[in-house]
Amino acid sequence: MGRLTTLAAVAASLSAAAAQTFQRLGACPDLGCVLPPDQSDFLPGQYFDLRLEVHAPVNGSEAFNGGVPDDKFSVTIAKEGGEAKGVAEFFAIDEPKLETWDFKWYEDLFAQDAGTPSVVNVASRIYRKIALYEPGNYAVTLTYYDGQTTTANWVVRPLATKKKAKNVILFIGDGMTTNMITAARLLGHKSINGKYQSLLQMDQFPILGHQMTHSIDSFITDSANSASALYTGHKSTVNAMGVYVDSSPNFFDDPKVETLVEILKRTWDSAWGAVSTAAISDATPIALTGHSRSRYAYGSLVDQGLNSVTNYSWTNHGGPDVWFGGGAEQFNPGSGSYEGKDYYEAFANAGYDISLNKTSLLELGNSSKALGIFCQSHFPVWLDRNVFTDNLNTFKNDPHGTTSPALDLPGLKEMTLKAIDILHTRGGDKGFFLMSEGASIDKQMHALDYDRALGDLLELDDTVRATVAHLKAIGELESTLILVTADHGHGFDVYGGVDTQYLSSKPSDREKRRAVGTYEMSGLSQYTVPVDGVSYGTGPNFPVNWDPRYTLAQGFSANPDRRENFKVHKSPRKVVSSTPGFAKSDMFVDAKDSPDGFVVNGTLSVTESSGVHSLTDVAVFAMGPCQEMFSGVYGNVDVFYKMASCLGLARPDGKTPADPESGCGSKH
Amino acid sequence: MGRLTTLAAVAASLSAAAAQTFQRLGACPDLGCVLPPDQSDFLPGQYFDLRLEVHAPVNGSEAFNGGVPDDKFSVTIAKEGGEAKGVAEFFAIDEPKLETWDFKWYEDLFAQDAGTPSVVNVASRIYRKIALYEPGNYAVTLTYYDGQTTTANWVVRPLATKKKAKNVILFIGDGMTTNMITAARLLGHKSINGKYQSLLQMDQFPILGHQMTHSIDSFITDSANSASALYTGHKSTVNAMGVYVDSSPNFFDDPKVETLVEILKRTWDSAWGAVSTAAISDATPIALTGHSRSRYAYGSLVDQGLNSVTNYSWTNHGGPDVWFGGGAEQFNPGSGSYEGKDYYEAFANAGYDISLNKTSLLELGNSSKALGIFCQSHFPVWLDRNVFTDNLNTFKNDPHGTTSPALDLPGLKEMTLKAIDILHTRGGDKGFFLMSEGASIDKQMHALDYDRALGDLLELDDTVRATVAHLKAIGELESTLILVTADHGHGFDVYGGVDTQYLSSKPSDREKRRAVGTYEMSGLSQYTVPVDGVSYGTGPNFPVNWDPRYTLAQGFSANPDRRENFKVHKSPRKVVSSTPGFAKSDMFVDAKDSPDGFVVNGTLSVTESSGVHSLTDVAVFAMGPCQEMFSGVYGNVDVFYKMASCLGLARPDGKTPADPESGCGSKH
Repeated sequence: MGRLTTLAAVAASLSAAAAQTFQRLGACPDLGCVLPPDQSDFLPGQYFDLRLEVHAPVNGSEAFNGGVPDDKFSVTIAKEGGEAKGVAEFFAIDEPKLETWDFKWYEDLFAQDAGTPSVVNVASRIYRKIALYEPGNYAVTLTYYDGQTTTANWVVRPLATKKKAKNVILFIGDGMTTNMITAARLLGHKSINGKYQSLLQMDQFPILGHQMTHSIDSFITDSANSASALYTGHKSTVNAMGVYVDSSPNFFDDPKVETLVEILKRTWDSAWGAVSTAAISDATPIALTGHSRSRYAYGSLVDQGLNSVTNYSWTNHGGPDVWFGGGAEQFNPGSGSYEGKDYYEAFANAGYDISLNKTSLLELGNSSKALGIFCQSHFPVWLDRNVFTDNLNTFKNDPHGTTSPALDLPGLKEMTLKAIDILHTRGGDKGFFLMSEGASIDKQMHALDYDRALGDLLELDDTVRATVAHLKAIGELESTLILVTADHGHGFDVYGGVDTQYLSSKPSDREKRRAVGTYEMSGLSQYTVPVDGVSYGTGPNFPVNWDPRYTLAQGFSANPDRRENFKVHKSPRKVVSSTPGFAKSDMFVDAKDSPDGFVVNGTLSVTESSGVHSLTDVAVFAMGPCQEMFSGVYGNVDVFYKMASCLGLARPDGKTPADPESGCGSKH
Repeated sequence: MGRLTTLAAVAASLSAAAAQTFQRLGACPDLGCVLPPDQSDFLPGQYFDLRLEVHAPVNGSEAFNGGVPDDKFSVTIAKEGGEAKGVAEFFAIDEPKLETWDFKWYEDLFAQDAGTPSVVNVASRIYRKIALYEPGNYAVTLTYYDGQTTTANWVVRPLATKKKAKNVILFIGDGMTTNMITAARLLGHKSINGKYQSLLQMDQFPILGHQMTHSIDSFITDSANSASALYTGHKSTVNAMGVYVDSSPNFFDDPKVETLVEILKRTWDSAWGAVSTAAISDATPIALTGHSRSRYAYGSLVDQGLNSVTNYSWTNHGGPDVWFGGGAEQFNPGSGSYEGKDYYEAFANAGYDISLNKTSLLELGNSSKALGIFCQSHFPVWLDRNVFTDNLNTFKNDPHGTTSPALDLPGLKEMTLKAIDILHTRGGDKGFFLMSEGASIDKQMHALDYDRALGDLLELDDTVRATVAHLKAIGELESTLILVTADHGHGFDVYGGVDTQYLSSKPSDREKRRAVGTYEMSGLSQYTVPVDGVSYGTGPNFPVNWDPRYTLAQGFSANPDRRENFKVHKSPRKVVSSTPGFAKSDMFVDAKDSPDGFVVNGTLSVTESSGVHSLTDVAVFAMGPCQEMFSGVYGNVDVFYKMASCLGLARPDGKTPADPESGCGSKH
């Protein structure tokens, strides 16, 4: 190992630049920050804000200039081959005022344990609602501290201005990996001698791609940041959407980027909507319109969904033509709603038909805008809505805000088909964009409840199947690009079969593990074998038996401590709880979970109560106009640029046919 | 849960038909067995054997007919719309003789624990070396026990007879999942603000597909069976290749199916070869020519590789034009070689140039057939060959069979490029087929040694990159279909970053777990950050630092007990060992593995010493002629039919231009 002899000496020289458990500010490795940062891409004509920050660390390994940030910094922009100009001059706008603040961060876990934060003073300016029109390479250079520079290289992509798809439907299986798709297929589809007799609908899409999901400043993303990448073409930071994250204390002043529906509305005046089995204020649906670094500002984000950004001049997306999901907390007046207001009323006043249950959903006309909020929080999952239906009574999730259960719930399929009808009617020749999310694939994988997760994956696929059939019926299949993808993964896979009867019968944890059969002893799926007298009534493409003796051995690359018996959990799963006598944040297995199972200790911090997201690329299934663009491997932001190109959203000449104000933001 | 009330009553009615941990005989759920079974596909003109078995269980839940099998069974075959004929008549061959035997199996784990096997008596016939030429649907019906029938529905696929690709190169990353590809990219390629500055070569292939890998009789496969599916278009059973598994005691009498290289040789007389970092007798390379239900019959399989099948009349594949790999045990005369013979001598006598080290490999001419065996067993991995090179001295793997280490080892890239030169020269206008395997992606994932596995994945990708460049240089890029795929998965994913310094510093297992940072605390990859004074000399597309303070949190959905510190293992990893005082088969963590780590207990039988394969679909990257055929989702057998179609291997008229004996096997 001769060539490694210098390695030991290196450890001592690790500086804050190598720190990664904590970062001073994502996408800003220097003391000068340009947001959007180096390597950003733009759609021609896409609005954005440009934030500059100069940092002066007061203490810690980066301490500089006595903690006094350079407020005389300057910034220029140059198109490749052109002259560098001051940003205000380039965009023909006024110079924004100087802002200052400070913030704290920890350099590593040792510093956090010791309670010794690093303090940073900041000087900043932000240029708002600007756009670059001419495709090409640009360099933005921040100069500070007497000649230090930070340069951001940007690309304005040369994209299509003509529509190839009238409509785009983007299905997102939240957290849905290829591994889960494979497992769900095994549950819901019968195989004879290794040949499937039916397939998932997504299996039958002609084009397959993989998208890389990582954040701008960490390799694992959350659903806000990844949804935002899909919708804006800009990566951001965990928990953020529609903005790059700055270091200021305000959650709603970060530099914004325009989203697909904002651009679509002002470019083509198309209809748009979102459907989710999560709260509609949850990251994946709300990132279509949200601009905040906090996904948890639910009430404000719902207000942005209805009224667009109101604290700054910004694109008015007109409000969704269709919004169907859960999350009544943000609509009933109270602590969960923006400024305590009644958002059912606000939507009604804006001309929306309001539906609070499946019955009224199905009765909705197709010509008005529609809001459907069917429960508080997220939907109960498909397995509880369709198989273990008694569980529905245990929820206190009535959409009116009482503690009654919501029992008249639509499924993702009913919501999606209704949404298509409304969008098709309202969009007319201008077409539409719809995002439809199977949200609890992710939420139940967090809970390590793989049966509930895979049930919702099958519901998503069933919805895609019905969507294809419905588009065909209304004559829109050929004009609609359909995508089925995910926003990130969970480390999950199936690795064998389990004789649950044998497992239950054994007294010790180690003996129980012999019940796991691998390779040839994994055997055949028993979920597709009919059982006399048992029918779940859930139709084809779902398991005919959810509770066979021989189940799947399913596991996680990361989990909190858990008990495992590999049986379907007839009640929703709770794997850990804090234990009397230990720190409240310390999680141990919950004795009531899988009592006949064995204990698997976790590979995450003991404060973690659920599974976590993973790194893996996720699949993109494509069918329809532009489908060929979605083959191969690319970043999540590329999904945006491909959709935008297919929808002809680029405006290199700055003219948007639908918006007479298109001159806003100078052309260059 | 009203609709589930009948479920409890059902458990009692579970019969052997629901058994799956053990099976009486895979692909034979009835007492009559047809092999190839129901749902089999065929290339027009592909040779195969047809085995019929009638089972008479003596005891157990299926006991029947006093244990006397019906030896008066009959079998017919009918093309859809045509008349059913006796098989011997249909194929114009003699009726084969009746065979009888018995075998034992366990119905479940309880029966195994109790030592109460079920005994089955068998009557059987086998029709050898037959073929179906005319595309269409066929029904084979076995009639037995006075009117019971078992029907196998077969499809002879209507495939192309014209060559579209002159050459096919099939890269197999053994066990390589999308999750691993994503992780390897993060190790070897630098990203700035979420945008990769370089990509894997496979990322740049235009077409992506997913293949479903399961076995014919279990949903988890091994590498023999899955390789065989890729090479023959027929799924089989774990550990089998080139055959369907029958119940007879002989490992070399099972019904065979013709492989790609056998068909290619007799159809076009093309050159063919195999390259692997495994022993050349290992499943993935040897399944090109092997016909046995035991992948462990290494010596015999190597003999089949040189001499083709010799115990029955069968296609002569002519021997590989190139065979490069490990596995000297099967070549040095002794217990590992077939009949104790010297296979270096046998190959030399057959006209092969023999190379036993990298130096002589590079000096080989391109016009002779070549055998290169560079070590005993499998190759030391890329990380040991290139970074921790001192480890090479610890192997006793000299290709001459001594206990010296093999130190002059080529890499996968050198072997593959040399193989291409030889195949290109020898194939000439007739083209070539090459399989090149990155074998230890799988083998090191079994060992839970993710760094070694991912190093070999990067070596595979580096080989693909060099192959593309080399084909371009010799003018064969446009005429060569290049595929990069896998044979199965391992449940693996990355879920965060780890501060290994913090982990090591903490005294307890639970405290150590706090070192794992998830989401925004996963941070940025430190494997691509140069370290002053450290160079591994491994070039671009590999990590510049294999041992950073901040590593990746990597995990498995299934593992034996293990200790985990998330650091690169400078010596090859051994996670478990049997412990004095316990059953020898019981595995516990090895105290010498990752001593500063924490214990993660396993989710597999305690007798399992390594990780296991998983269910997930694996990716297929395609570039070149016919690339568009490889988009979407399909079975592993379809990879064979797509390659065969691209190579024009179908012979619906029974005429093979290269083989005057093409009339063998009647035409129908």
